[in-house]
Amino acid sequence: MDQDSGPETSLTLRPLGVVRSPFQEPEGGPIQPSGARGVAGEALIFPEYAEGLRDLEGFSHLVLLYHFHRCSKVQLTVVPFLDQQARGVFATRAPVRPNHLGLSVVRLKAVQGNTLLLEDVDILDGTPLLDIKPYVPEFDQPAGPVRVGWLSQSGQMVTDKKSDDRFS
Amino acid sequence: MDQDSGPETSLTLRPLGVVRSPFQEPEGGPIQPSGARGVAGEALIFPEYAEGLRDLEGFSHLVLLYHFHRCSKVQLTVVPFLDQQARGVFATRAPVRPNHLGLSVVRLKAVQGNTLLLEDVDILDGTPLLDIKPYVPEFDQPAGPVRVGWLSQSGQMVTDKKSDDRFS
Repeated sequence: MDQDSGPETSLTLRPLGVVRSPFQEPEGGPIQPSGARGVAGEALIFPEYAEGLRDLEGFSHLVLLYHFHRCSKVQLTVVPFLDQQARGVFATRAPVRPNHLGLSVVRLKAVQGNTLLLEDVDILDGTPLLDIKPYVPEFDQPAGPVRVGWLSQSGQMVTDKKSDDRFS
Repeated sequence: MDQDSGPETSLTLRPLGVVRSPFQEPEGGPIQPSGARGVAGEALIFPEYAEGLRDLEGFSHLVLLYHFHRCSKVQLTVVPFLDQQARGVFATRAPVRPNHLGLSVVRLKAVQGNTLLLEDVDILDGTPLLDIKPYVPEFDQPAGPVRVGWLSQSGQMVTDKKSDDRFS
C-alpha cells in the first residue's frame, strides 16, 4: 500500500503457520483467553519462518494475530456474546469484523523446533497464524486508568461465557 | 483461507482508514506508544465503515492493527532498536516481519464523526489501518507474572529511544 491508500487498496498476507487447539467448531468455545485458562494448544510454524522464532523462548506470553478463517461474513453492528444489544463491531471483539483479524494474548510454555507449545488458547483449530509478537507490559499496557464502555457491565463474565453460532 | 491452509494460501485485506500523526519518516520517531505519551494523532475512517464505530467512545484505549507500509523488506533476524545483537524477528516488534503487521495500544480521546482523536500515537503518518479493537484488561492482560526475555535488560529504555533508518 502506498502512503495515501484508499479503501480500494489491498494488502496480501500469507500465513506463518497454523494453530492447533481442542476447539473444532466456532460454537461452544471460550470467547477470550481468560475463558481458556490452562487450555493447551500449539502453533505449528512453517519451516521457512523457523529462523524468526529465535529468542522467543525467553518470553512468557505472546500476542498472536490470526485470521478468523471460519467467518466469512462482515457486519458493522453485532450483538456480542457478552451483551443483549447491537454494538458497533469495532467496539467488540467479534469475528465478523472487516478484515477478520483476531488477536489473543497466550502463554508460551516452550519452543520445540518449529512448534510453539501454548496455553490459554481460545483459538479455533486450524486457524491460520499471521503474526507472533512478544507480549511486553511496557509496550502493551496503558499507563493510566482504563475505561471499558459497554463491557463495564459484563466484562467479568468472559471467563464463563461460551460462544454460540451467531457469527458462523 | 480454508482450514488446512499452507504457506502459499493468501488473504487479502483492505484498509479501514488512515492514521494521521506528526511522524512523517521512519527515522527519529518513538518506537512504542510508551515513547509517544501525549502525542496526538487521528484515525480517519472511510465512510463505509463509520457505522462500526458506534459505542467506541466508552473505551479509553484501543488496540490498533495496521500495515507497516513504509517497510517492504522482510528479515527473519534483526538487531532491534533496543539491543546490540541479532534476534529472531518474532521475538521483536520490528516492522521487517513477514506480513508487516503493526500493533499499538493508544488512548482514545474522542470520536468525531468518522474521526478518532487519539493520544500516545507512535504510528507513522499515512499508515493504513486494518483493525480497531477495544482494549479490555480482562481480555488483554496476562493473569500471572510476565517474563520478557532479552527485553528484561532494555525494556525500560523504550520511553526515550528513537527509531533510526535500519528498517526503511
